[in-house]
Amino acid sequence: MLDINKEIAQLNWNKEPRGLYEPIEYTLASGGKRLRPHLAIIAAEAVINGGLINSMDDVLPAALALEVFHNFTLVHDDVMDRAEVRRGQETVHVKWNDNTAILSGDQMLIEAYKLLAQVPAPKLPQVLKWFNEMATGVCEGQQYDMEFEHMNQVSIEDYLKMIELKTSVLLAYAMRIGGYIAGASPAQQEALYQYGLNIGIAFQIQDDILDVYGDPKTFGKAIGGDICCNKKTILLLTALETTDAESKAELLQWLMSTEQKEEKIAAVTALYNRLGVREACEVVLEEYTSKALAQLDFLPANSATETLRELAEQLAIRKS
Amino acid sequence: MLDINKEIAQLNWNKEPRGLYEPIEYTLASGGKRLRPHLAIIAAEAVINGGLINSMDDVLPAALALEVFHNFTLVHDDVMDRAEVRRGQETVHVKWNDNTAILSGDQMLIEAYKLLAQVPAPKLPQVLKWFNEMATGVCEGQQYDMEFEHMNQVSIEDYLKMIELKTSVLLAYAMRIGGYIAGASPAQQEALYQYGLNIGIAFQIQDDILDVYGDPKTFGKAIGGDICCNKKTILLLTALETTDAESKAELLQWLMSTEQKEEKIAAVTALYNRLGVREACEVVLEEYTSKALAQLDFLPANSATETLRELAEQLAIRKS
Repeated sequence: MLDINKEIAQLNWNKEPRGLYEPIEYTLASGGKRLRPHLAIIAAEAVINGGLINSMDDVLPAALALEVFHNFTLVHDDVMDRAEVRRGQETVHVKWNDNTAILSGDQMLIEAYKLLAQVPAPKLPQVLKWFNEMATGVCEGQQYDMEFEHMNQVSIEDYLKMIELKTSVLLAYAMRIGGYIAGASPAQQEALYQYGLNIGIAFQIQDDILDVYGDPKTFGKAIGGDICCNKKTILLLTALETTDAESKAELLQWLMSTEQKEEKIAAVTALYNRLGVREACEVVLEEYTSKALAQLDFLPANSATETLRELAEQLAIRKS
Repeated sequence: MLDINKEIAQLNWNKEPRGLYEPIEYTLASGGKRLRPHLAIIAAEAVINGGLINSMDDVLPAALALEVFHNFTLVHDDVMDRAEVRRGQETVHVKWNDNTAILSGDQMLIEAYKLLAQVPAPKLPQVLKWFNEMATGVCEGQQYDMEFEHMNQVSIEDYLKMIELKTSVLLAYAMRIGGYIAGASPAQQEALYQYGLNIGIAFQIQDDILDVYGDPKTFGKAIGGDICCNKKTILLLTALETTDAESKAELLQWLMSTEQKEEKIAAVTALYNRLGVREACEVVLEEYTSKALAQLDFLPANSATETLRELAEQLAIRKS
């Protein structure tokens, strides 16, 4: 198995001006799950029937491009969201400043395209086209996410559309691109894409659930952060759809409160419990997981496809 | 002659979410000289010996990509420089806000790559590689420009390197890419590139000169803006290299002053006059113009090449 962390560590950022490249090195060295390059590579392995691709060099540049792109979005999103900590370390705009985060972020996006330019020439036009569609989806998703903050009424449907754009299209195209470079048939490409799309939405729903119900020891961030800042998660949107007038009034009251953090988290969680919000969201989560799993029937049965099955199944019991 | 403004006006930004695409439409509709796409197209015309390319469709997407890229840099640079007005209208971060300028700017960069993806497939790998090199140069140049603001000592050599990256590589690659798509030989490509590089530097030097000596009626912005904010232009750097101790002391005194704008502009201009700064910079300007003109010997003699000659010659007498 290709060691993605090692490959990322080998990217060379020892270039001038340091003020531009140091924040890129800092961001890419900060870890993360490397989910996107892994998905691209597993997708490639799945369609070449579990064996090793003759030269993994063909898939690697695109896989790395997807990771660099993802990290670019984090750097710019953190500026826009004024987030101070990411992966346990200061965000770029805090450690340096906003201008550095903007410009180094821009350069990261360009670096992603530099990696993409290494895709074998016959496959480059299609991969570039998909990559651009993916990048557009992510920006559109971030725009909707920012707009939702200031909207009173957001439907669960709108929310699902937003996370599909902001999170899932990147996973979906990671799989399609990885598979395509490895020679997937159009039907396999579509299955890989749909798997990624559905698992991405399931992943985000699980994230929302864990923010309230996760184990603080393993979750890695403070529990209840979304409740504190009234983030429009699927849990909150589900609770707001309740027809229980008393619960709704209580919820709206807490939404207006910006003090009493601990009390707010406890009260809103109790309300979620009373309304069965967690269970309702888990039903939706399982729907998307099932849709992802169903796509695997269109792929060869091999160890890579098995890994994809386990990934989808583990989603439902993820704790961090 | 292809109408670039019409082609840009035909790009479709009537998409959702409006908050993402409206600022892009606003920026691209604000005009500008469209120098970069024009250079790409003139370069193409020059190497096909003045005739029309069979299908201008081959060059147009790359030409538009260069213009969209240039406008992306303006949107992000204006955030970083806190500039409030651009082409006579409010900058994006003023009309909307910083987050909008960051995210719509990101999307513009992606849109540039979408246009680039339309380059004929056999030429796409090379064009993408050059475009990435160009974009990297522009970001590095902007980083140096920001760093220079806080440095006491900047040499004229450093300054010329910075403007080469920030301004010239975009003009140089515009010409190389336009020529390459139209079938330029490697020697012609190099001549086009060098022409663009040298004319770009000459262009920026002329800009610095006009900021002090331009005609307020035709220049389009206030005269002396660079003097007011101590911008490290080639004029200031040339003046700072003087060995006349009295003049140097007077200049440093004025650099510390942030009040008395009118007096400062008048005094520093008088000092420039006394030291012959304008003439010294015009010598450098003419050196770069000559280098640009010399490249034309490697191109076919035709009306497009003639246009390039006129452009270089007019540079020296540009008033706006």
